[in-house]
Amino acid sequence: MDFEIEKRDFLKGLSLIQSITARKTTLPILTHVLMEVDSDSLFLVGTDLEIGIREALPAKVHEGGKASVSAKKLYEVVRELSEEKVHIQKKENHWITLRCGKSVFNIAGLDPEEFPALPTYQEESFSQVSVPLLLEMIEKTVFAATNEESRYHLNGVLFLQKKEAGREILKMVATDGHRLSLIGREGQTIQGIEKGVIIPKKGVTEIKKILADKEPEERVGLYFDPTHGFLKIGKSLMVIRLIDGEFPDYEQVIPKQNDKRLTVDKEKFYACLRRVSTMASERVEGVKLSIKPESIECSSYNQDFGDARDEVEATYGGPSVEIGFNSRYLMEALNVIDTEEVVLHLKDEGSPGLIRPSSPVEPPDQLCIIMPMRI
Amino acid sequence: MDFEIEKRDFLKGLSLIQSITARKTTLPILTHVLMEVDSDSLFLVGTDLEIGIREALPAKVHEGGKASVSAKKLYEVVRELSEEKVHIQKKENHWITLRCGKSVFNIAGLDPEEFPALPTYQEESFSQVSVPLLLEMIEKTVFAATNEESRYHLNGVLFLQKKEAGREILKMVATDGHRLSLIGREGQTIQGIEKGVIIPKKGVTEIKKILADKEPEERVGLYFDPTHGFLKIGKSLMVIRLIDGEFPDYEQVIPKQNDKRLTVDKEKFYACLRRVSTMASERVEGVKLSIKPESIECSSYNQDFGDARDEVEATYGGPSVEIGFNSRYLMEALNVIDTEEVVLHLKDEGSPGLIRPSSPVEPPDQLCIIMPMRI
Repeated sequence: MDFEIEKRDFLKGLSLIQSITARKTTLPILTHVLMEVDSDSLFLVGTDLEIGIREALPAKVHEGGKASVSAKKLYEVVRELSEEKVHIQKKENHWITLRCGKSVFNIAGLDPEEFPALPTYQEESFSQVSVPLLLEMIEKTVFAATNEESRYHLNGVLFLQKKEAGREILKMVATDGHRLSLIGREGQTIQGIEKGVIIPKKGVTEIKKILADKEPEERVGLYFDPTHGFLKIGKSLMVIRLIDGEFPDYEQVIPKQNDKRLTVDKEKFYACLRRVSTMASERVEGVKLSIKPESIECSSYNQDFGDARDEVEATYGGPSVEIGFNSRYLMEALNVIDTEEVVLHLKDEGSPGLIRPSSPVEPPDQLCIIMPMRI
Repeated sequence: MDFEIEKRDFLKGLSLIQSITARKTTLPILTHVLMEVDSDSLFLVGTDLEIGIREALPAKVHEGGKASVSAKKLYEVVRELSEEKVHIQKKENHWITLRCGKSVFNIAGLDPEEFPALPTYQEESFSQVSVPLLLEMIEKTVFAATNEESRYHLNGVLFLQKKEAGREILKMVATDGHRLSLIGREGQTIQGIEKGVIIPKKGVTEIKKILADKEPEERVGLYFDPTHGFLKIGKSLMVIRLIDGEFPDYEQVIPKQNDKRLTVDKEKFYACLRRVSTMASERVEGVKLSIKPESIECSSYNQDFGDARDEVEATYGGPSVEIGFNSRYLMEALNVIDTEEVVLHLKDEGSPGLIRPSSPVEPPDQLCIIMPMRI
């Protein structure tokens, strides 16, 4: 193996590998990056067996081959290099030599044949998906997934293709059992997910990261087999092991009888909640909403520090109602709604609340559900 | 107590108090901020008994008085307020009520009489010191102080006023036992520190913070009594308890016989060290310098990851010498030298090295000493 590569390209590739490569593992090779060189490209491969990535980088190849070295150390070295031209050669005993300007690094390696192979995929099965659409749908749902890895079936986002009222809708749903976020979009289909697949939170986060610097008009390939999701961008590939579990029946959770509907300015409501939440108890983070004909009064109480109340104008015609929510859940839901105003759908103090954009369509293309709490 | 204050001023004052107020303490009042209101000002006082601060803020006072509430909670509340006019009134049982726009906060307090008094000072004893000079001298020394609180006499910066060759010189020195940084400046005298005082690292850091947004032409008052340092900026005051210990005899530590002198470009040397240090062992961080007539070769070795070598041009006429140093100590020393080139003064592989700006004056106005290490 003997090739030259631009530092800029190499560093960017290695940087994407960093968060995927395992840090704590009993299998040392999972902390490594595999370098595979063919006639005109370097492929960087990293995996923690849950997520794998294989990136193609342009290289000037003198001789093909493979090598495997610590991903973290190689990244640290390349980050400090002073010149653009980086020259890498394989040495005996799986070591490599890296030269750049006057710098020479000899880096210890492991047998590249030990590096686990990524799952294989079928080239023709990929659906082409718009980058901004994928990013938007992920951002508007993933925050609601649980962080508890033990509740593994909720530790991800449900991707689902569904026909509703004659229209093909791509849906994403996430929930932690206390709140749920759902988004649906027309005009985009992904094959093979009619029954739904759950992509783990870490995988979704890596998808966001790898798409972050793509152009809005770009499209990426997505394909799911029964155990893995595959994301293809140009010559690079990301593989994510799907969560093997049953996602809750989210349709059944959506409240249908929340007849008390009030409209409120999103930014003002958010700022009011932020202020009042400073006095909410740190553990339960609860705020009480007292809904009145022209306003929402938000209040909180903390047994160590005191209490707070504030109010925000709202449009509402119904009877007064008082209901408690986790303030952070409310704020995170408001955060992912793009309209200037939001509509709260409530029933009573013991029933879940629903938040939707102010111009709702049926069936809803976006909603957040939040369980109430006793304050 | 009843006053109005601008949110902007209040928030800035509370923000300075945050890092001084104790977090973990058996004395709850030390987590509080004391508010003292006289005829036209609000004074905010915070202390952890090591450092104290008393800031004067303009206020519209309806009634004087005192109150004491959680510094952290008050800061969190004020940070979220939506309007500029903040109105605070004392209630029964040491509570306060804070109003701003439609927001109302009732905040629990403690008896303000329990709040510890700051040490007193003599108004006429202050020396006036230039802000940029104080900041420069602190920044060029404090990094070398130890972080180990148990070595308390090294956990700070020595301030010393000294007459050398007929000139009045203000000096600052810090050391952790492995390296030392010294700076001296003429034309500035501080009274009462002819024997030297040691200001704790945390105090020095707070001085830096409070001076950070001052204008370059501003001057601050500095005064030391046998146990405390006092810093006065306008109507605000910072008090720091001095370290009661013996600072090492730094004059004796300065090597006098380092006759091997080489000149090297500071930025290039720094970048070379950064590159090579990536392969230094994480625990000892050692790099080997091989000094040759025209260059310094830097090299490192890590038993897990491999080795690195690089070189940088240098002007040197003497015999070859090899010497090991902690790479971070070298880089931190280079970081605080402003000249384009630096001069390394070496003796042999077992003796401390000296780094100075390339235009040295005698007695030296800046130097760093670094102990060698076996690589």
